[in-house]
Amino acid sequence: MTTLWQASQQLQAGNASPEVFTESALRAAQDPLKEGDLVFTTRYATQAAQQSTAASARWQTQQALSAIDGLPVSIKDLFDVQSEPTTAGSHLLLNAEPAAANAHVVDRLHHAGAAIVGKTNMTEFAFSGLGINPHYGTPANPWRREDKRIPGGSSSGAAVAVADGMCLGAIGTDTGGSVRIPAALCGLTGFKPTANRINQVGTLPLSASLDSIGVIAHDVRSCWLLDSVIAEQPLELQQVELRSARFAIPQTRVLEGLDEDVALAWKHAIAVLEQAGATLIALPLEELDELNIMNARGGITAYEAWQWHQQSALAQPEAYDPQVLVRVQRGSLLTEQDASELHQQRKAWQHRINSALADFDALLMPTVPRIAPTLASLEDAQQYMEVNALMLRNTSVINMLDGCALSLPCHQTGSAPVGLSLASVHGDDARLISWSLAVETALNWRS
Amino acid sequence: MTTLWQASQQLQAGNASPEVFTESALRAAQDPLKEGDLVFTTRYATQAAQQSTAASARWQTQQALSAIDGLPVSIKDLFDVQSEPTTAGSHLLLNAEPAAANAHVVDRLHHAGAAIVGKTNMTEFAFSGLGINPHYGTPANPWRREDKRIPGGSSSGAAVAVADGMCLGAIGTDTGGSVRIPAALCGLTGFKPTANRINQVGTLPLSASLDSIGVIAHDVRSCWLLDSVIAEQPLELQQVELRSARFAIPQTRVLEGLDEDVALAWKHAIAVLEQAGATLIALPLEELDELNIMNARGGITAYEAWQWHQQSALAQPEAYDPQVLVRVQRGSLLTEQDASELHQQRKAWQHRINSALADFDALLMPTVPRIAPTLASLEDAQQYMEVNALMLRNTSVINMLDGCALSLPCHQTGSAPVGLSLASVHGDDARLISWSLAVETALNWRS
Repeated sequence: MTTLWQASQQLQAGNASPEVFTESALRAAQDPLKEGDLVFTTRYATQAAQQSTAASARWQTQQALSAIDGLPVSIKDLFDVQSEPTTAGSHLLLNAEPAAANAHVVDRLHHAGAAIVGKTNMTEFAFSGLGINPHYGTPANPWRREDKRIPGGSSSGAAVAVADGMCLGAIGTDTGGSVRIPAALCGLTGFKPTANRINQVGTLPLSASLDSIGVIAHDVRSCWLLDSVIAEQPLELQQVELRSARFAIPQTRVLEGLDEDVALAWKHAIAVLEQAGATLIALPLEELDELNIMNARGGITAYEAWQWHQQSALAQPEAYDPQVLVRVQRGSLLTEQDASELHQQRKAWQHRINSALADFDALLMPTVPRIAPTLASLEDAQQYMEVNALMLRNTSVINMLDGCALSLPCHQTGSAPVGLSLASVHGDDARLISWSLAVETALNWRS
Repeated sequence: MTTLWQASQQLQAGNASPEVFTESALRAAQDPLKEGDLVFTTRYATQAAQQSTAASARWQTQQALSAIDGLPVSIKDLFDVQSEPTTAGSHLLLNAEPAAANAHVVDRLHHAGAAIVGKTNMTEFAFSGLGINPHYGTPANPWRREDKRIPGGSSSGAAVAVADGMCLGAIGTDTGGSVRIPAALCGLTGFKPTANRINQVGTLPLSASLDSIGVIAHDVRSCWLLDSVIAEQPLELQQVELRSARFAIPQTRVLEGLDEDVALAWKHAIAVLEQAGATLIALPLEELDELNIMNARGGITAYEAWQWHQQSALAQPEAYDPQVLVRVQRGSLLTEQDASELHQQRKAWQHRINSALADFDALLMPTVPRIAPTLASLEDAQQYMEVNALMLRNTSVINMLDGCALSLPCHQTGSAPVGLSLASVHGDDARLISWSLAVETALNWRS
């Protein structure tokens, strides 16, 4: 398995051609033993191959457009590609107006020479953390694929595409955990930067106040690299030492109900970080419980989703995934006054959390409290809702905070994937990535 | 990097031919960027290639001679090969009488179909733990090769051959640590079974009371596999759980003077094992200090080495490595009465150590207290002696005990290799290997 970072290093050293990586990705996407058919809603095989061939010539003449020129990347099915409808994993938008222009991030990828292999499947309208899609099918989690476990969502195809080698990096979105959850459940690294870091023009919204664009790849360096391509400026990596780290571990909400695998991997991660000299401080952070109240009626997400969906949800409810529809409809019961109060509560809450975290380098938590359940176990609507709430419980804290977060694998090789999240406050992305790299290095002691 | 275990698994699954592995090994042995010229004292390239071709036909017809049929293995330069002089890394024996028959282990390898790629370089007569050989040169440690660090010894070529991919497993000998020290310094796994486990007929002795035949490979399973080929019976692997492990950590002798890298890796290993639920108990074991007295005048090794070397050391001292000669000559000052007392002391000491360890599953210690020093730093004779004593300090405890021990890598990837030793009492080899596998799994959490 080559990572995006490694592929880029090989290109820069003149040891490889981007065509090798893109051809390999396109082959994987066609492999009947993999989940290609469920991963992609649209494929750009011919263009991707042409793009990597053109990039190959550029590398040979030292005219590469970027460090990822010609490398295979995927985009979630909610980014505009000029002249195509943007479907966001729905049937509703299959015949939508073609996009007038590329989404900003798609333009950025083109300018960097990336070989975009396709648009990836997702929870319809990005409104769930499980990754189940009844219209296009659900790509199975790479772990014990025969079990048919959920990939996590909403950027489900994004994670499986990376895990199955159909691209080296994926662009997704994250409103409550939609990048970090599938990364965690599929054994990958997911980075959700501070929302305003990446320009969201041309991205189909779920909840404008909470949406952010993020990346999924194999490791921290690869996420850093892909982020640097779609952002205006690369994050400046800083030299940090775990011996001087002060990490907060919230004692409220985020450690409840861990299953056996998650608890074991989490305990292991904590032991390794302590051994590496990091100072880990249990922080009560009882404020996290207030989110239950703020989100009791669907919260900001439901309100904002309803504003966008109102018309179609009323006119064509049958076109929706019933599980998504029910979540969208909750927003119909919220008034503008409710929304305004929620925003005020959020601001005050953010202020208190920011104060509580001021003395810490990052906050640590398990990304999700459970390993990926089977699709079969979620056929029951009640189960779907409960597990979905559980999957989003920890990650959504950081969207509410308007902070930044990264999930990286911390499970024992061969065991069910488990994600460890580092998170920090608004705009602390460069330090977050730097600390993540240090934590990744410590966890991968013998890899 | 493929391990012996993985190669064997591939052969058994019908997914590979042994020729692939042997050809790759023979290519590595010829690679001018590797240490082939210093690793081998004799090469058997043609025979090894023929052997793997014959084995390939056997695998195809389900007639493989063993699980390693056709796989590349090396033997230390002190095992008899019929019709060849056995030189043991010396000049003295270059024109010795050709061996009348193969050593027992060489016969075992032949019966198993192994492709023996060559005889590996060693400290002359196996009498030092550094691996330096002035006659045939010293293969540099694979870590930061440009530094020209010692490989460790005496089975120096054995370890470098495995590390450089010139074979998948190596047979060595261990009188005071000669398998475990080079394994530790080169980032490999080394298993020294209880001495009587492997028939030593046809093996040039250093000290009959302390000599044992052991193996070096990439991991515990590969060591287990190679051991099962040269022993009469394979060790039966047992299901063990670290949660129920009781490991003793001697507080005398073995933890003194660790350098920064060794201390860090050791601390990490301990933290991981504790996290995995193992019970680690600090054991005073002050008896270990008695070894200083028993070995003050060279001990059993010097006495027994002198018996073997007396004649040549007196007649042709100039043919010897001066550093080896001085160690051999110490034995000349020991009388038969001294030797008899040493054996009595050893027996009594073994009895006390066995009692002290009775309640434990294994004893843990750093294999060597220092990372590999540069060859240049050991040109000074005083330095050579001091560092040699330090390198042998921990491992030689187990030879005196007539126990079994295994060293496995515990350093952070990319850092200087550091070995963690598990050891146990006489005949406890099956449990030792089983515990080693559990420890290896825990340490390689994310690999």
